[in-house]
Amino acid sequence: MKKLLYVLLSIYLPVAVSTLSPCPAAAQGDPLPSWNDTAPKKNIIAFVERVTKEGSPDFVPIPERIATFDNDGTLWVESPVYTQVAFASDRVKELAPQHPEWKTQQPFKGILEGDMKAVVATGEKGIYQLVVATSTGMTEEEFEQSVSTWIAQAQDRKFKRHYNELVYQPMTELLTYLRNNGFKTFIVSGGEVGFMRPWAEKAYGIPSEQVVGSTMKTELETRDGKPVIMRLPQISFVDDGPGKPVGIDTFIGRRPILAFGNSDGDQQMLEWTAAGVGQRMMLLIHHTDADREYAYDRTSSVGKLDKALDEANAKGWTVVNMKDDWKHVFAFQP
Amino acid sequence: MKKLLYVLLSIYLPVAVSTLSPCPAAAQGDPLPSWNDTAPKKNIIAFVERVTKEGSPDFVPIPERIATFDNDGTLWVESPVYTQVAFASDRVKELAPQHPEWKTQQPFKGILEGDMKAVVATGEKGIYQLVVATSTGMTEEEFEQSVSTWIAQAQDRKFKRHYNELVYQPMTELLTYLRNNGFKTFIVSGGEVGFMRPWAEKAYGIPSEQVVGSTMKTELETRDGKPVIMRLPQISFVDDGPGKPVGIDTFIGRRPILAFGNSDGDQQMLEWTAAGVGQRMMLLIHHTDADREYAYDRTSSVGKLDKALDEANAKGWTVVNMKDDWKHVFAFQP
Repeated sequence: MKKLLYVLLSIYLPVAVSTLSPCPAAAQGDPLPSWNDTAPKKNIIAFVERVTKEGSPDFVPIPERIATFDNDGTLWVESPVYTQVAFASDRVKELAPQHPEWKTQQPFKGILEGDMKAVVATGEKGIYQLVVATSTGMTEEEFEQSVSTWIAQAQDRKFKRHYNELVYQPMTELLTYLRNNGFKTFIVSGGEVGFMRPWAEKAYGIPSEQVVGSTMKTELETRDGKPVIMRLPQISFVDDGPGKPVGIDTFIGRRPILAFGNSDGDQQMLEWTAAGVGQRMMLLIHHTDADREYAYDRTSSVGKLDKALDEANAKGWTVVNMKDDWKHVFAFQP
Repeated sequence: MKKLLYVLLSIYLPVAVSTLSPCPAAAQGDPLPSWNDTAPKKNIIAFVERVTKEGSPDFVPIPERIATFDNDGTLWVESPVYTQVAFASDRVKELAPQHPEWKTQQPFKGILEGDMKAVVATGEKGIYQLVVATSTGMTEEEFEQSVSTWIAQAQDRKFKRHYNELVYQPMTELLTYLRNNGFKTFIVSGGEVGFMRPWAEKAYGIPSEQVVGSTMKTELETRDGKPVIMRLPQISFVDDGPGKPVGIDTFIGRRPILAFGNSDGDQQMLEWTAAGVGQRMMLLIHHTDADREYAYDRTSSVGKLDKALDEANAKGWTVVNMKDDWKHVFAFQP
């Protein structure tokens, strides 16, 4: 949960209004129409053609065509703050009437007064309290309902859009292209699975059973004579950094042949993917587009990309330069 | 791991040679040719037709057609001892030359001398030591190799067959029938995932990412400069009894519409399935066939079926009487 601590710093930062970019009509038959014809697109298509060509030494059988994608900053926007943190902040405000004690208790007091410095000063313990207060002590179905309601209503401050509209169009095209070529696509995110599953299928075509993420401890209880799954106030697994290969191994049980991330939190997932036998493809998004999205990397408090960028350059992993390699970023950009 | 303790009692019990049963040719177009035309088969086909009929009020969209199956005693043989316990016993014998101390230490001494009473006397702690000694302290890939090697060589004592031949033919037909009707089939077993994944795809057509089970704690380490997943000597999740709904929620994230088990360890999975909205089907196998397989239920130390059988009868869940409802049990029975 360290990530959450640092990114709270950047909540509510003033952001520039985005410049709209032109989006030419897709070339007929082009599986990746929102990608420019630069190296990343060529690498991706060449890789997919290699591993799907029957009889070729590089051929990979369909069941082994596992592709894993980070979520925040890889499939949707993570700046200026991870969406799950925005959700937690809104939930604190919503739940505040039932918690009069929050008016005087940090980190809740800070959230309610918009004093993010005070929130951050509470450290990891405070962030932990925030997550516990907003996403546990309820059933999975109750939490799912609260996420679904929020995602349908809340708006991002820069683009004035619902968060599930802030998915990257080139990435949803890539997910579809891979699935059309026999790949099974998975999310492998530091975010909590209960926060992603309610909207991931609609946004990405990725069903809940292919969403791997951090998890809260849960248990079976009986309520009104019916069994329910309760979310307990304890994080049981952190699916970030070295946790990502562990999460993939536990939930998927196979090593991916393609892994796509955007930050140092994805480095071990890409290293583990690369260490497999046979054809492998490792990719990173480099956020270089301050106009259409955001530009950040080595010193960012959210989605820091530093060591993984060096490793990508040293090892020849594919780095997608958002500004140069994508024709447009969002579906709503004309 | 309580199960393991009790079932060790029954290792190496003398068993009767099975009587072969006739297996008439499948009726053309019959999706379940190894099932007799009794109530369970009729219930299953009626259920599948209801939930797949577009426009019907009972229609269930494909992504929600989740079917979960227990493994031991539901998809393959679990008597006279869970196969994973047979594996652990064989591994102890195999590893014994590297562990001279085992000659004098229980539960290893008992395994090596065939003195199962002594093994059982070590209690849960002993069983824990057995599992740790035979399946941790190695990488996932090393363990997978040891399971694959064992499953290709070891033979059951009653049928003189490899364990992966002891899958129930009516159940593999049912898995195929469900998949042909848009269902996604999952294993949800008390067994450890690392023990099931190496052979489940070949035996059942269920890929590793659809195998939910008990898990050992793992971590990412570097060995010879390469990342590996190490299996640590700690059980991190027990996917049995109340753990099954928790495992389904964590790994799959949706409630099944069909759940199939055979013991009290499956009771909560069936209850949780039944508690969902809309069409649901809950099934239990009742092992009633001492000739073709085994007969056991309320007082068995392995696969005990007592409370769940009462609940099935009270609530109208489908109970499959192996002797009466299956034309034959195994593919190798002519």
